[in-house]
Amino acid sequence: METALPWIYSLVDRDMVGMGSPFGWEVEKMVGTRNTGGKGLDLFFRPRNIAVVGATPTHGKGGYSIIANLLESFQGKVYPVNPRREEVLGEKCYPSVAHLPEAVDLAIVFTPAKEVPGVVEDCARAGVGAVLIESGGFSEVGVEGARMQRSIVDIARASGMRVWGPNCTGLVNTRPFLFTPFMRLPDAHVRIEPGNLGIIAQSGMMAAGFMVQYIISGYFKTSKACAIGNKSDVDETEVLSYLSEDQDTQAIVMYLESIVRGREFLEVARSTARRKPLVILKSGRSEQSARAAMSHTGSMAGEEGVVEGALRQAGLIRVEDFHQLMALGKAFSLNPQPFRLTTPEGNRVAVITVTGGGGVVSTDLLHDENILLGSLSSSTLKALEEIFPPWMGPGNPVDIWPAMEQKGFSAWSEAFKVVMEDPGVDGILTLPFSSRMVKEFPFQFMGEMVKQWRKPVVSWVFGDVRFFAEFTTEMEKAGIPVFTDLKTCALTMSAYLHYARMNMKAEK
Amino acid sequence: METALPWIYSLVDRDMVGMGSPFGWEVEKMVGTRNTGGKGLDLFFRPRNIAVVGATPTHGKGGYSIIANLLESFQGKVYPVNPRREEVLGEKCYPSVAHLPEAVDLAIVFTPAKEVPGVVEDCARAGVGAVLIESGGFSEVGVEGARMQRSIVDIARASGMRVWGPNCTGLVNTRPFLFTPFMRLPDAHVRIEPGNLGIIAQSGMMAAGFMVQYIISGYFKTSKACAIGNKSDVDETEVLSYLSEDQDTQAIVMYLESIVRGREFLEVARSTARRKPLVILKSGRSEQSARAAMSHTGSMAGEEGVVEGALRQAGLIRVEDFHQLMALGKAFSLNPQPFRLTTPEGNRVAVITVTGGGGVVSTDLLHDENILLGSLSSSTLKALEEIFPPWMGPGNPVDIWPAMEQKGFSAWSEAFKVVMEDPGVDGILTLPFSSRMVKEFPFQFMGEMVKQWRKPVVSWVFGDVRFFAEFTTEMEKAGIPVFTDLKTCALTMSAYLHYARMNMKAEK
Repeated sequence: METALPWIYSLVDRDMVGMGSPFGWEVEKMVGTRNTGGKGLDLFFRPRNIAVVGATPTHGKGGYSIIANLLESFQGKVYPVNPRREEVLGEKCYPSVAHLPEAVDLAIVFTPAKEVPGVVEDCARAGVGAVLIESGGFSEVGVEGARMQRSIVDIARASGMRVWGPNCTGLVNTRPFLFTPFMRLPDAHVRIEPGNLGIIAQSGMMAAGFMVQYIISGYFKTSKACAIGNKSDVDETEVLSYLSEDQDTQAIVMYLESIVRGREFLEVARSTARRKPLVILKSGRSEQSARAAMSHTGSMAGEEGVVEGALRQAGLIRVEDFHQLMALGKAFSLNPQPFRLTTPEGNRVAVITVTGGGGVVSTDLLHDENILLGSLSSSTLKALEEIFPPWMGPGNPVDIWPAMEQKGFSAWSEAFKVVMEDPGVDGILTLPFSSRMVKEFPFQFMGEMVKQWRKPVVSWVFGDVRFFAEFTTEMEKAGIPVFTDLKTCALTMSAYLHYARMNMKAEK
Repeated sequence: METALPWIYSLVDRDMVGMGSPFGWEVEKMVGTRNTGGKGLDLFFRPRNIAVVGATPTHGKGGYSIIANLLESFQGKVYPVNPRREEVLGEKCYPSVAHLPEAVDLAIVFTPAKEVPGVVEDCARAGVGAVLIESGGFSEVGVEGARMQRSIVDIARASGMRVWGPNCTGLVNTRPFLFTPFMRLPDAHVRIEPGNLGIIAQSGMMAAGFMVQYIISGYFKTSKACAIGNKSDVDETEVLSYLSEDQDTQAIVMYLESIVRGREFLEVARSTARRKPLVILKSGRSEQSARAAMSHTGSMAGEEGVVEGALRQAGLIRVEDFHQLMALGKAFSLNPQPFRLTTPEGNRVAVITVTGGGGVVSTDLLHDENILLGSLSSSTLKALEEIFPPWMGPGNPVDIWPAMEQKGFSAWSEAFKVVMEDPGVDGILTLPFSSRMVKEFPFQFMGEMVKQWRKPVVSWVFGDVRFFAEFTTEMEKAGIPVFTDLKTCALTMSAYLHYARMNMKAEK
């Protein structure tokens, strides 16, 4: 298998050069000692030392990228393994894991599929604690691949060794730092800032080209990002369970094509969702897509009706597109704690807007999410009357433009305050605009109000695109997620309120 | 009314400084001669000369911006009118329209609301052909405003003069060039390139801050953009009818909060939709939003169930958010002609993807839009087998990554070609990635195929954001609209196929 397109893995960075495909080499059989470390997923997330089987000094190959990334950013010892090389990137290269001077916690494997069973056998004998297989060519390519995948798991299970993958990019941990994907990302440890969002994804390219891009761009900050691939041994349930217990992870988003142990998954999900917001994009909703999932990661997608009800009951928030998954990831990363509801229904919102038209459309989109406009109290209406021009009667949506025209940003702040204080309102959707006056916008005041009242605020942004980035950064510092389409704003408000309602019910 | 925030109208450009609010001045009563020009909307779109009532040299005021824009970009004569000024921007200023040396086709009015009836009376007497009232403070602010608005219409109708507005930014025409909004946009005629998309919007801020931004950013190119405000006289039906006949307009998008003459509107819409794609965002779908619309532009929104069925029957494509309206505006601007369908159902699509996961999610999202994956013919499957690696069975979605890994972009092109030629496929959704290899992507080849086979292609983009702009530009030159979320891709494909099916039915 020759790689004509090493550049594809330059998705993230101009220096981030790709995989190349696995190269052929022979694996010797040997006997080693068992690693004495814990058998849990800590071996994957916090290994003390790592062997890279398939390491190569050839720039552009995946086996180069993995080792180059690790040598740069991993704190423990890294051992290149490749029988055809004496040295890789200045490090002594070993012909097989049997020849390593110590047993390693984790072996990352990136060799051609047909070599993998032998490598795994070597690892088992050499006392490797856990194996992360990034190579593809297993259950996703047919019967023969599935057979090989099973044999790998059999070998591993016989010796108590855990297997992650195959057919994946592995994981990113930000505390302590570990970056396993087969794409080169120089200074990964500097560029990926630690955060509180846990990510689980079944699809490698998605995880690589999409989520990593989001992570690096600062769209949200992650605690641990996990691409679980064919999940031959370690599966979504186990990874979710790990993230559920992980102190650094305060909210979790998942992209899954299948759920292999339904009952166990739902149990873990239910208990997780009581403590951390849990968002899922579960594809394979239609019969055709379920078939597509089958051929992609070789997984059964499950009966849609059953899946839908079960996920809902377990308290997961379900979305339909990657874009939505990332949006809610950002939203819950900003606000992992449930908000406080002040209406009995817990679905009453106010809209504060500089555009009447935007207010009307927002009302429709909130309605689509089962959210109603809250009735403002008489004291709120009275306060708004003071802010509004005399000719204008206040209401919800709060059409703030005429008042701002007269009083500037103080009209915005005053209206925001009285609406926030209104017990008839569980949350606020704001429709301001971005302009070169961005520095004068009352971000900080809004942030203080959010903190004080613990009600969710979500904001649209429109206007001058040149100030979107600054506007968004400042709003999000204040705990207010910003989106450029109103549908995503409505979805996010719905998710915030849903999580708050769920939490309130659980408390009762 | 003092303007504390003139900067709001800097939405579009750093030099685009705002409105300011109308200033007070006295209007003298006078008698003039009737304009002999046509009474149709040509007076608004193609006036030979224009008076600006409320013109001022005070930078930052709306009455400055209107005249400054016109003097720079309008080919005919422009007359400033303001009793307190002798000269505005080097042009002689007239105390009232009665004093103009000739009757004008169009008077643009930007004075305080209470002055407007007097101004309109002046215009009627002076033989002005049409009045475009940008001032606010009419039916949108209550009973008194509504009464004043009616009196304006009465005055105008008595003399056969047409009224556009009030409470709006007016219009942009690109051939011949005319830009009436009360925001300053230097070099508007250079920066707004002529195009084929007609836009009708009921909300001023929306039109100003959102659509103009889209137009200037080159998201799509417009023929005529119309903000119709309170539509006291000229309404959505009349403007639609005008755009329907307009040679420069090949596709139309509309944002409406209300439809005032339902039967007439549907008639015009039906006949328009047979010749030009017609997309509508009609807000006020819920009871609460209908009330919000009432207070925003003083319009009745209509019974949702009736509206929905009627719009659908008339052949309009309905969307729910501004973001979607703009997306379909772009899509139909790129491809205003109906595509050719090759399956009996006209809703069979192929997905060509570098990400298996994206293929699965796309399948779900297409399914939500009532689109199914087409069955590829045996000859297509055979051709794909030649392109794919031996271990991989071809199907739909066409998971092209392993083949590209071996053969580079030629695998993409070859697969695209055979799928395009398959009669079981009405359109193709592509999921490529953007990277620094963007220059080598076969945009041109894809464009040729689209032209030859007349099937819609819509593309997602993911990967390296730094190349999104170039990727998008090149794709769209090839007639393929690009979006960053899969839901919008599915929506667009659905709209293309819907319009093609409607057209086929009409031909039968």
